[in-house]
Amino acid sequence: MKIPSPSIPRISLYYRVLLSLKDKDIISSQELSELTGCSAAQVRKDLAYFGQFGRPGSGYNVEVLKTELKNILGIDKDWDVALIGAGNLGSALLAYKGFRGQGFNIKYVFDNDRKKIGKLKQGIKVRDILELKKATKQIGINLAVVAVPQEAAQEVIDELVLSGIKAILNFAPIRPRVSEDIKVLNIDLSTELERLSYFLQRRKV
Amino acid sequence: MKIPSPSIPRISLYYRVLLSLKDKDIISSQELSELTGCSAAQVRKDLAYFGQFGRPGSGYNVEVLKTELKNILGIDKDWDVALIGAGNLGSALLAYKGFRGQGFNIKYVFDNDRKKIGKLKQGIKVRDILELKKATKQIGINLAVVAVPQEAAQEVIDELVLSGIKAILNFAPIRPRVSEDIKVLNIDLSTELERLSYFLQRRKV
Repeated sequence: MKIPSPSIPRISLYYRVLLSLKDKDIISSQELSELTGCSAAQVRKDLAYFGQFGRPGSGYNVEVLKTELKNILGIDKDWDVALIGAGNLGSALLAYKGFRGQGFNIKYVFDNDRKKIGKLKQGIKVRDILELKKATKQIGINLAVVAVPQEAAQEVIDELVLSGIKAILNFAPIRPRVSEDIKVLNIDLSTELERLSYFLQRRKV
Repeated sequence: MKIPSPSIPRISLYYRVLLSLKDKDIISSQELSELTGCSAAQVRKDLAYFGQFGRPGSGYNVEVLKTELKNILGIDKDWDVALIGAGNLGSALLAYKGFRGQGFNIKYVFDNDRKKIGKLKQGIKVRDILELKKATKQIGINLAVVAVPQEAAQEVIDELVLSGIKAILNFAPIRPRVSEDIKVLNIDLSTELERLSYFLQRRKV
């Protein structure tokens, strides 16, 4: 069955809400709706894509649902992540402990800056980006975070794809071209801030 | 005229491409198309919303267009930003110099942790979140970045709105409820990573 892609971030949202619950064994779609802001019908529909988790009228077992959602999201195990770019943003992402808490371990860092290569960042040795292909093949990782400048991003992403990386979280402000079997998600912090400044600007006109 | 909201991130994208150009006076919508991945018709349409920047067949003057796009995005001036939450993510965002480069200056940091209040983070004093309302009113800022845990986020955002903040970049994994005159953009790094692990997981099945 084809799962609509907006369901996935909602599954993450339900999972996070369940994590925050204390001393609760059963939860209804209505309660999940109130806690997430999604409609109860939407909650039921999203969960039904992945199987029959609750019984009509009796709600969902919190522990069972938590485990199932974890499996669905692929976070029942840890993922090793390669970070490309040890500049300002890359360093900030390395220092951010939230990824690790979610089971995403940035284990490898690559850069092309001679001054950074070989140095430790947050306890991880920065490797030469020229070793990317060899290293990722040896390591067998599938997931990479790209935090390089705009000009370098497409080239780095091409290189990642050649190295066998299948999923990329890209922070560079470009819309990379990749083949259909590769998943790229783009997060552009500056663009988001500019959407806000645009809004503030227009408000005042 | 009502500008469709997906145009704005594209305007940011065009602007960024223009910034990266060297020794180029004139650019055609076709060239902008190739550099951004948006269609030439889309480029012309987006720019036409904001006025007549180019002459048909002769392309756009790069310097003029740059200035105009900057004005449109509201980044012809700097914006003072308040950061709420001096934890892992907040500290990473504070250390990230990209915001400043774009004219977004995180000038104020608030937290509710007694151990952090009064200390300096990246040269900025962490203030007590209880002073938020008073401080933001005095300071007259409009823009805030929220990097607090999920449980605290809605309360913090309500407080920001009461303090007169109009635009919020929210990193907490919730979908905050705000009134219509407030703009909130949500960035949830863990959810993005989970979309990738979901994809990788399904790939293997």
